Amino acid sequence: VLVFQVKQEVDKLLELKAQLGDDQKTKFILKCPKGTRDYNPLQMSIREGVFNTIIKCFKRHGAETIDTPVFELKETLTGKYGEDSKLIYDLKDQGGELLSLRYDLTVPFARYLAMNKITNIKRYHIAKVYRRDNPAMTRGRFREFYQCDFDIAGQYDPMIPDAECVKLVAEILSQLDIGDFVIKINHRKLLDGMFAACGVPDDKFRTACSAVDKLDKTFWDDVRMEMIDEKGIDPVAVDKIGEFVKLRGGIDLIDELLQNEMLKSKKEAIEGLEDLRLLLKYCDLYGVLDKVSFDLSLARGLDYYTGVIYEAVLKGYAHTPVAGSEEESVSVGSVAGGGRYDGLVGMFDPKGKKVPCVGVSIGIERVFSIMESKAQASNEKHRTVETEVYVVSAQKNLVEERMKICRELWDADIKTESAYKKNPKSLDQFQYCEYSGTPLAVIIGTSELEQNVVTLRIISTREEKEVPRDRMVETIREELAKLSSAS
Amino acid sequence: VLVFQVKQEVDKLLELKAQLGDDQKTKFILKCPKGTRDYNPLQMSIREGVFNTIIKCFKRHGAETIDTPVFELKETLTGKYGEDSKLIYDLKDQGGELLSLRYDLTVPFARYLAMNKITNIKRYHIAKVYRRDNPAMTRGRFREFYQCDFDIAGQYDPMIPDAECVKLVAEILSQLDIGDFVIKINHRKLLDGMFAACGVPDDKFRTACSAVDKLDKTFWDDVRMEMIDEKGIDPVAVDKIGEFVKLRGGIDLIDELLQNEMLKSKKEAIEGLEDLRLLLKYCDLYGVLDKVSFDLSLARGLDYYTGVIYEAVLKGYAHTPVAGSEEESVSVGSVAGGGRYDGLVGMFDPKGKKVPCVGVSIGIERVFSIMESKAQASNEKHRTVETEVYVVSAQKNLVEERMKICRELWDADIKTESAYKKNPKSLDQFQYCEYSGTPLAVIIGTSELEQNVVTLRIISTREEKEVPRDRMVETIREELAKLSSAS
Repeated sequence: VLVFQVKQEVDKLLELKAQLGDDQKTKFILKCPKGTRDYNPLQMSIREGVFNTIIKCFKRHGAETIDTPVFELKETLTGKYGEDSKLIYDLKDQGGELLSLRYDLTVPFARYLAMNKITNIKRYHIAKVYRRDNPAMTRGRFREFYQCDFDIAGQYDPMIPDAECVKLVAEILSQLDIGDFVIKINHRKLLDGMFAACGVPDDKFRTACSAVDKLDKTFWDDVRMEMIDEKGIDPVAVDKIGEFVKLRGGIDLIDELLQNEMLKSKKEAIEGLEDLRLLLKYCDLYGVLDKVSFDLSLARGLDYYTGVIYEAVLKGYAHTPVAGSEEESVSVGSVAGGGRYDGLVGMFDPKGKKVPCVGVSIGIERVFSIMESKAQASNEKHRTVETEVYVVSAQKNLVEERMKICRELWDADIKTESAYKKNPKSLDQFQYCEYSGTPLAVIIGTSELEQNVVTLRIISTREEKEVPRDRMVETIREELAKLSSAS
Repeated sequence: VLVFQVKQEVDKLLELKAQLGDDQKTKFILKCPKGTRDYNPLQMSIREGVFNTIIKCFKRHGAETIDTPVFELKETLTGKYGEDSKLIYDLKDQGGELLSLRYDLTVPFARYLAMNKITNIKRYHIAKVYRRDNPAMTRGRFREFYQCDFDIAGQYDPMIPDAECVKLVAEILSQLDIGDFVIKINHRKLLDGMFAACGVPDDKFRTACSAVDKLDKTFWDDVRMEMIDEKGIDPVAVDKIGEFVKLRGGIDLIDELLQNEMLKSKKEAIEGLEDLRLLLKYCDLYGVLDKVSFDLSLARGLDYYTGVIYEAVLKGYAHTPVAGSEEESVSVGSVAGGGRYDGLVGMFDPKGKKVPCVGVSIGIERVFSIMESKAQASNEKHRTVETEVYVVSAQKNLVEERMKICRELWDADIKTESAYKKNPKSLDQFQYCEYSGTPLAVIIGTSELEQNVVTLRIISTREEKEVPRDRMVETIREELAKLSSAS
């Protein structure tokens, strides 16, 4: 019995030990933080292509670029984002300054202008921003994501820079070739005039705006409830708003609204409508009128907009809320947004000096996902390295000879790789060429060394030729030129 | 007297009010967080040039690229950096995961490999890292700074990838053209063998390494004191170490040390020396032996190195500690560093499966400062925009005609700007062309419109010619080609 008891105790201990071991193994979770992701080489090569298209467009419009730190003093961000401020990531206070990760690129830009007393500039900025949102990652929403911003700061004449932003978005979305799109436009002054006309008190304009902004993701009934129950807006006013936000159209609608009995008496509404009319005229001159839709339900969440607002939506992915769907709906089609913010720089200036600004932000995570799906669907091989020549050993103990050739090719600016094993197998070396899409192989064996030549192989055709060692670089350049002109 | 008293009181109140007003104004501090900075357009254009050189070199060696989030789970970074861990920036815990900003790109890379079960890859990664260091910003040290990392992961033969890292650093530093440099090399196994031979107990190897690492910034006497007083290492052992860390040289020194009575019996030291001998041989084949110096005082601060270690120093900026100087000395000349870390990926793998890695990190903040000084010293104008054509109104009320021309040029992929004012002054428009370096202007006035032509002006020569409107794009392309082949 004693022996049995001891055995039982030992078993128990062993079990405990096993549990302990398991615990230690599973304790460490190997993952990216919630809402973030790595980019693998294929994704990076797609990303590089998207960025190149966008940067080319920014430069075509004469923009220069700046960069700002990933975090700002917390107070720089305070009071700029309205109800979205709760999504800001703060850093731990370690006896220094209170810091927050940037939430967008617009506020750092305004801080930069005020700090450096810059009164006019056209700049782009491509960088990651951070929002502690509840991410629906399968739909391309993340907590860390790229924004590509283009802004024009300066005291100019009405709608000239504003129209260029619309033109720019149309160029970028056309060139990215991700399907048809529409650029919705509206105006904060029109919204304010409309709220006033409907009977919303002044101090509830911004919160009413926030509610209307949700119309691309949810139903009017829900927005209506939010305005009445949460925001305490008079139901009569809310129902009047409901009639306006249904409207969308073009110049005809603007003309109609200019005659509207409710709006006519509101100076702000009229100013907004006049701006929009001029904007549409300029869009026509820029050849993008067919891409633009004046839409009274467009509100934009952020507090700092003061004039025209924009949002570009991909038509194939536009969201229509489905009645009875339990799932939270997300407007996945939105790929760009922006507007005019004439007061933001003044918030940073010690004397409140204003610098009028207008800009757009391309939100490209959705674009990346579409491009990725396209790349997966197509049969074309997407290269992730640009290697032009692979140096192959045909026999053993030639690592040093391969190194000499690599050196010669690298020094001649030819993209070259060779195996990191001393004696790699022939098959492995050629397979790497095929797999990586490397077009040429330089092959050396003892006979090549004796004759002071190399064998040059074209991987796609398996054609081979002997080349004198002192003509190797020259011949490779010729073959690469031939291959690139053929493709 | 009463009147006087009242006046006094009023003056006091006014003074208090003025102080209060001033206080409120100075309360908001308009600045970047400590140790960070903005990049203006000129700095960005220099940065773009440096990155292009580096990326070109990485691609020449067949590397692909990845990206990882700016923050990692705190535990991913825990236990990887030894004494430097105190410099990590933590995020505020807001009921989610504990997160930290990345301290380097190596640990995220190792996490990426383990998470995706990748056993071989050659990748580069260019991104910002974060260290809450006490920055000496005038010397080009920041809390937010770029690293450009190149790493080779995989089970390969000794020193073949390691030598390519040396070759790559030599190529990059030569091509950046920032003066002469030396790549110091040493080996962690040799250091460990040396510590053992001198009588340092095993569990003090890493802390001894940290102390020796300071030799590029401070005197041996200070390092000696630290090892004895702070780290509790036997003074006899420390003085033996002092003799070794003086040594630097090439293959001769390696051969000498292989015969050294103290080291001979230490297997690790011999393995390290054999590796270094092979590395120098391969460096010779790669044509970079003259850039390499075997230096026993090189230790590298980070815990994770297991083999060869490197550090590249610009000779013009190498630091020599000055006796009696109160100021903390900083090694400003160091522009690249790295080494072999065969155990790091295994720390993340649930089964401890190892993936041997070697890599280098180019720390380019110092390179940026040197390039900036060079740009300032030279008289050449550095363009920050790439605009090719500026569309000029010669008279009033031509904004719509300018817009039509801009549209045509943008749609033909010609980089074009025009004034954002309705009626800009002629002088302002031409001054912008000169100032921004725009080579061509398209000028329109009523006579041009009547004749359906534009006037094309070459800004540098002030030469003008009339061009039929339907040949405008073609003629601009020809003129741009001429100008670029002439320069």
